[in-house]
Amino acid sequence: MFQKMFENVRGKNPLIHNITNYVTVNDCANIVIACGASPIMADDKDEVEDITNICDGLNINIGTLNSRTIESMLIAGKRANELGHPVVLDPVGVGASKLRTETALRLLNEIKFTVIRGNISEIKTLAVGSATNKGVDAGIGDRISEDNLDDAICLAKAFAEKTGAVVAITGSVDIVADSQKAYCIRNGHQMMSSVTGTGCQLSAMTAAFVTANPDHVLDATAAAVSAMGYAGEIAYGRMSKQDGNSSYRNYIIDAIYNMTPEDLKKGAKYEVR
Amino acid sequence: MFQKMFENVRGKNPLIHNITNYVTVNDCANIVIACGASPIMADDKDEVEDITNICDGLNINIGTLNSRTIESMLIAGKRANELGHPVVLDPVGVGASKLRTETALRLLNEIKFTVIRGNISEIKTLAVGSATNKGVDAGIGDRISEDNLDDAICLAKAFAEKTGAVVAITGSVDIVADSQKAYCIRNGHQMMSSVTGTGCQLSAMTAAFVTANPDHVLDATAAAVSAMGYAGEIAYGRMSKQDGNSSYRNYIIDAIYNMTPEDLKKGAKYEVR
Amino acid sequence: MFQKMFENVRGKNPLIHNITNYVTVNDCANIVIACGASPIMADDKDEVEDITNICDGLNINIGTLNSRTIESMLIAGKRANELGHPVVLDPVGVGASKLRTETALRLLNEIKFTVIRGNISEIKTLAVGSATNKGVDAGIGDRISEDNLDDAICLAKAFAEKTGAVVAITGSVDIVADSQKAYCIRNGHQMMSSVTGTGCQLSAMTAAFVTANPDHVLDATAAAVSAMGYAGEIAYGRMSKQDGNSSYRNYIIDAIYNMTPEDLKKGAKYEVR
Repeated sequence: MFQKMFENVRGKNPLIHNITNYVTVNDCANIVIACGASPIMADDKDEVEDITNICDGLNINIGTLNSRTIESMLIAGKRANELGHPVVLDPVGVGASKLRTETALRLLNEIKFTVIRGNISEIKTLAVGSATNKGVDAGIGDRISEDNLDDAICLAKAFAEKTGAVVAITGSVDIVADSQKAYCIRNGHQMMSSVTGTGCQLSAMTAAFVTANPDHVLDATAAAVSAMGYAGEIAYGRMSKQDGNSSYRNYIIDAIYNMTPEDLKKGAKYEVR
Repeated sequence: MFQKMFENVRGKNPLIHNITNYVTVNDCANIVIACGASPIMADDKDEVEDITNICDGLNINIGTLNSRTIESMLIAGKRANELGHPVVLDPVGVGASKLRTETALRLLNEIKFTVIRGNISEIKTLAVGSATNKGVDAGIGDRISEDNLDDAICLAKAFAEKTGAVVAITGSVDIVADSQKAYCIRNGHQMMSSVTGTGCQLSAMTAAFVTANPDHVLDATAAAVSAMGYAGEIAYGRMSKQDGNSSYRNYIIDAIYNMTPEDLKKGAKYEVR
Repeated sequence: MFQKMFENVRGKNPLIHNITNYVTVNDCANIVIACGASPIMADDKDEVEDITNICDGLNINIGTLNSRTIESMLIAGKRANELGHPVVLDPVGVGASKLRTETALRLLNEIKFTVIRGNISEIKTLAVGSATNKGVDAGIGDRISEDNLDDAICLAKAFAEKTGAVVAITGSVDIVADSQKAYCIRNGHQMMSSVTGTGCQLSAMTAAFVTANPDHVLDATAAAVSAMGYAGEIAYGRMSKQDGNSSYRNYIIDAIYNMTPEDLKKGAKYEVR
């Protein structure tokens, strides 16, 4: 199934509109290309509606949000909803400031999201109103382990039920759930947390996957999450003694570029609960 | 001739003011350094006039434009015109939104550009009002091949005639033309389209080349275009099996850094029409 | 001493709020992670106070400043002062425009900085009102050599006395001074000036070092400066014939990632004056 999801991205080359932060935007653009889609970044309120019109899917990421771009997110998101385009939300750092929390809740209220992807602290903040996040990273108190995996799956399913979105919680184990079914994905490498924006990159790539597979949102999201994690494994395997997090960043994107759908099928590690 | 153009960049180390998008800005800065010039990025309306005053050339790129930066582009462009500094326009994604199209046309109307560089869809949009562009990429219906090369050269010469600028259309074959003469440049590698911002990088580098060679704008632009393409070839030659578009991005900039003017002379592939 | 400073960064993992430019922001985030701290980038006036509240230190960098972010810098800086958090100022390109000069002076007037880090032209502009800077780079007329090193040390100590901040002037020899004591640091490689933003990266890393060592600001700043220079040496040692400034950028961050506090102790080259 993951193989087919990935084949569709490569085959359809969807055009993805990204309203995203200026920290990781270049990596987001390059990974969208690497997976087989085309990115366009545009965040001015006077053009986002036009851009959404010509694109196939939308990725909204609230890192480095500001009053100007928040308005653009709302305009683009509503237009994408009208057009029936998939919309992904990455609530970066929600909980870290009142502005981020209020903006994320407003976006959830006014836009129907296809996928919501965040770390456990971000999703807890949105779903239950509090968490132990540390800036843009998940808090230690929140981290997913085998001990609390069932609780996290329940949280994801309940939040998916509430929002109608597929919910992706990424961490040492990744959970991708709709209200009925959850993938527990065991790809990835802990060094991925040493690179800024692997989450942002995954959200952008997820937008590409769900846009290419609109009738299989859960599977397409799980395929994107698995592909990202598997790329982290492949990239780690390339690391020389002198390589650090900057080279690792390049290697992850390279790994997506070189990954075939068949590779993903072989490399994916998950169970369904 | 290309050798001399490049030598002048390395010898004069011009300071280039860039008003550019936040997606590819870091790569633009690094490639400007790599070719022998110095970059400064500044986009606030309250400082762009001062910055243009101390710089030797200006590069205006409308990717991720917004109301704040559009005003700055106009101020800086007019000031550069007053000072007689070369000004390059990169009309990223023109045609993709009304804002981009109107902004690009307004810039063309109010500023005299030395060079206009875009893909075929962008140049067609500016020159004849319509094209088949796909977001920030050229549309398939527009792509330059041997079959339509003469038409594209005519378009470039006519648009150069109309604007007084040298027109650079980059694609599988690159065209650099003034109203009388066109270079058809056959450097480059198709993988360059897998890296976000190779066009932006080229525009920034072109600003450096024409600033260092103000009396040879056509040749200097052609030299920059050829250098970028040749760097794409060299970079491709370095690719290992596991390298992808992220490493390729680094290798292109590295290739410009290591390219000597004599290398460019030997590697340049072009004819004049 | 440097070893202990670095150990504290790795041991405490401070959370650093960065209000910085969009040119080098990704590299700043990755080097903050590489040295053992965590970055968060946020620049909207409606959230910077919240973000400063949850962070441990603040880094203000005026590259690509604008009216929106200048206000945010002032709000965040004042809040950090109230909280007793270390605040670093990187006055990028001060002197290149009236806006940058006035903003830097206003920041110095309204915020108490823990560290001020710039090149010699930037520090001269702030300390004595004029310099020969070239855009964001130090002017040739200003550059530090053995001949004018004593003068530069005097300047640094006097400016430190005036501001109450530790002053770091980076160049071919780096000076880190308070009013009484100056480190002359002889790490680094001249190729570092071929990468955009090595200064920005150092300022972000310095914020991490002083935040982890609030009672040893002079030593912590010197340790960060020495670590950055040493990383530049290690990175240069990795360069293959085809590597250029883009690979070098990655290698510098990689070198910080792999550097142990003990490595820094062994690699640091400095004298105290």
